[in-house]
Amino acid sequence: MTASADVTLRLPFDPSSAWVGPEDLCLLTDLYQLAMVRAYWEEDMNGEAVFSLFARRLPARRSYLLACGQVAVLESIAALRFDAEALRHLADFELFSAEFLDWLAGFRFSGDVFGVAEGTPVFAREPIIEVVAPLPEAQLVETLLVNQIHLQTLVASKAARVVAAARGQPVLDFGLRRSHGVDAGLKSARASYIAGVTATSNVLAGKVWGIPVSGSMTHDYVDAHADELEAFRAFAARFGDATLLVDTHDTLEGVRNVIALAAELGDAFDVRAIRLDPGRDGGLAKEARSLLDRAGLAHVDIFASGGLDEHAIDRLMAAGAPIWGFGVGTEMAVPSDAPFLDFAYALSAYCGPGPFEVDADNILPGRKQVFRVEVDGVAMRDVIARADEELPGRPLLVPLMRKGRVLESARRDLAAVRAGAHAAIAALPERVRSPSAERSDYPVEVSRKLEADRRRTTGGEGDDR
Amino acid sequence: MTASADVTLRLPFDPSSAWVGPEDLCLLTDLYQLAMVRAYWEEDMNGEAVFSLFARRLPARRSYLLACGQVAVLESIAALRFDAEALRHLADFELFSAEFLDWLAGFRFSGDVFGVAEGTPVFAREPIIEVVAPLPEAQLVETLLVNQIHLQTLVASKAARVVAAARGQPVLDFGLRRSHGVDAGLKSARASYIAGVTATSNVLAGKVWGIPVSGSMTHDYVDAHADELEAFRAFAARFGDATLLVDTHDTLEGVRNVIALAAELGDAFDVRAIRLDPGRDGGLAKEARSLLDRAGLAHVDIFASGGLDEHAIDRLMAAGAPIWGFGVGTEMAVPSDAPFLDFAYALSAYCGPGPFEVDADNILPGRKQVFRVEVDGVAMRDVIARADEELPGRPLLVPLMRKGRVLESARRDLAAVRAGAHAAIAALPERVRSPSAERSDYPVEVSRKLEADRRRTTGGEGDDR
Repeated sequence: MTASADVTLRLPFDPSSAWVGPEDLCLLTDLYQLAMVRAYWEEDMNGEAVFSLFARRLPARRSYLLACGQVAVLESIAALRFDAEALRHLADFELFSAEFLDWLAGFRFSGDVFGVAEGTPVFAREPIIEVVAPLPEAQLVETLLVNQIHLQTLVASKAARVVAAARGQPVLDFGLRRSHGVDAGLKSARASYIAGVTATSNVLAGKVWGIPVSGSMTHDYVDAHADELEAFRAFAARFGDATLLVDTHDTLEGVRNVIALAAELGDAFDVRAIRLDPGRDGGLAKEARSLLDRAGLAHVDIFASGGLDEHAIDRLMAAGAPIWGFGVGTEMAVPSDAPFLDFAYALSAYCGPGPFEVDADNILPGRKQVFRVEVDGVAMRDVIARADEELPGRPLLVPLMRKGRVLESARRDLAAVRAGAHAAIAALPERVRSPSAERSDYPVEVSRKLEADRRRTTGGEGDDR
Repeated sequence: MTASADVTLRLPFDPSSAWVGPEDLCLLTDLYQLAMVRAYWEEDMNGEAVFSLFARRLPARRSYLLACGQVAVLESIAALRFDAEALRHLADFELFSAEFLDWLAGFRFSGDVFGVAEGTPVFAREPIIEVVAPLPEAQLVETLLVNQIHLQTLVASKAARVVAAARGQPVLDFGLRRSHGVDAGLKSARASYIAGVTATSNVLAGKVWGIPVSGSMTHDYVDAHADELEAFRAFAARFGDATLLVDTHDTLEGVRNVIALAAELGDAFDVRAIRLDPGRDGGLAKEARSLLDRAGLAHVDIFASGGLDEHAIDRLMAAGAPIWGFGVGTEMAVPSDAPFLDFAYALSAYCGPGPFEVDADNILPGRKQVFRVEVDGVAMRDVIARADEELPGRPLLVPLMRKGRVLESARRDLAAVRAGAHAAIAALPERVRSPSAERSDYPVEVSRKLEADRRRTTGGEGDDR
């Protein structure tokens, strides 16, 4: 299967061609999805399917994942339509009959979707969402669902570690320039905010979601002025509560220039912080703090940035570095220790609980529920069960979409999502939410009934044999 | 600096709010960029600035980078406008005066931009683009430029290694679902195509850029049918030249089912390939080949997929695995060995070649040119020089934009860009373009004049002392 060569092109240098709009989303998929859908449709395989989206296993340096991004992508799926332009394009492939394209023209996603709330900690094998829909519909939405939830869960999971390492001190997201493209830059800001980050440098993320936006100055600003003191003078004259970047040349010389500016301005000095690369064990931050304190500038905070991740922040905090807040860019937006997750969107049932054989690679059959058992507010263990079971603990999966429409109950305010994430992370055992946790020893069990289903559908194969 | 709390929000669950349009790009920036721009504007620092975008150093497992993404982002920058909605949003910050917002309302990028052609191999310190513009304008476009060129250069650089490992056999891009969001999914398909990938699974990338689109079937399709043979039968009945996925359960059993289908269909059998996870040394591919050949199906090709990267492909090819083509997903779209690059967009001159002090971290001052010296069609060394020098070798930087307009000469057809990349990579010494190259020993020199400028501007500091 290859597209015919005479595929219709937009003008390749129309700037808008590089920006995807909602009308393009129907084609933001892998070709094989459309091929499968055509085959299912022609084979009258329109029965109810259950697909589970979950992590097969956690990366080495993650003890849990923070599920994120479920609701917005479901809104996009509810709005998914194949317009005339998209259908014309698909016709060029010579893979799809006119009848099938007519069916696509009338396509509306009509399924039910269950999922954990955004900001819920999840573990390997636990469904983040389950899609219950006619097989062709459930197949058609796979690529978009995985693309969006994967990105946002990836970033939120890293950001939660960074926030934990900062032990309550503010963390700012500076990741936009190294994020993988526009969509990642925008959604990473939201995902890291949900995970507890205080603010972002991304102005558009602030506009779209009301996330607090923050920023200071660049090294180039210092370079463009005659000298550093002159740059500080010019900047502080314009911006109240400014943060001055002191590490362009010599950090402690930079601090002395801030002190000189304070002496120069007297009561008019309202710089609130300096920003610097604190050094591995915070030595530069300590020296800067000492210089500031001796100059009577105890109220000027120290803000750290420069290649930070949760390990660097943890080390700085453990060393007692006098740092008020942290700016984290690349390592939070593009976590190099786990730049992707082993997500699966796996068919878990087709046409009820019949003799359906699932792939044995950590797939659990049928519709499921996850019960989180908490004692005195601390999560002790999870049990993955059949959806029709009632077991002790708090059920994590709730309805998000019914008959193709996102439920009002799923549309939560960003502040509520963030507060929920904070509470859910706080309820994890300390060893699990620790920023230095290397893997998860959190107990995740499979209920007796679900395990029996699994053995039946896989012929007993699986990980625990 | 923090946004006021009463920032205007779009409806948070309007699906379109999550999709960035051209009108939003003016705000897709870090807040400090706008703060700098306001300061420069108020300080009358409107003189000509030169910014260079380059990699400070290469990641450990890259011997060169394949520059990509320069032209489309310049088109976006040429079209960048602050509309009334964006200006209203910025007014809410209480950081920007009405006069400054008026200036932003009239903002048009008016600069000149020089750069290497898309698909040019570049090394550390070599400018990918140089922006020559009034200081506030050049600062304003930083975040978007870096975000876009970083992503596409990152993916193209990895894809070039994957393509080299495949030694002429086709490589297909399957990365969309694990790409970091929509923009990355789309632009990674284009970047990897430029680097020599044969086709993508991404239907929208095919529509936007005319990239060949390809696909086969999923494991779920097999699972949804009564048995594997039934799934193969149904699929082959619908799609000519189909590729059948044989590794859902037992790979060799899957191959036997393909052979059974061939026996069943006789002359009507037109399956062209099977897809499988070939095993680390290609053992399964060899066994499958042998089974197919003995069944008279020598014309059915073997297509490999499953967590492949350049090292896995190189090993398979070295082992003589009988593989026709490779599907590469996650590791090409999100290269885990180098998920980001150490890009800088650094002020290299302001108001001419005066006593401007540049940061010593690998920044070369002023406007520059790179000369690639080739002997008998093989690149021997590069010389980074002042832009006004004429040295032996082919100059790599050409004008891309003049007075804020992208030049027609910069708007190259995708096929021409891809052919140019192929030729430029082929001209690298074998040790540099090898997929197993761990670092670059390609000689990159700094011209005598540029080195003198650097010593003058940095007071002689730098890496070579």
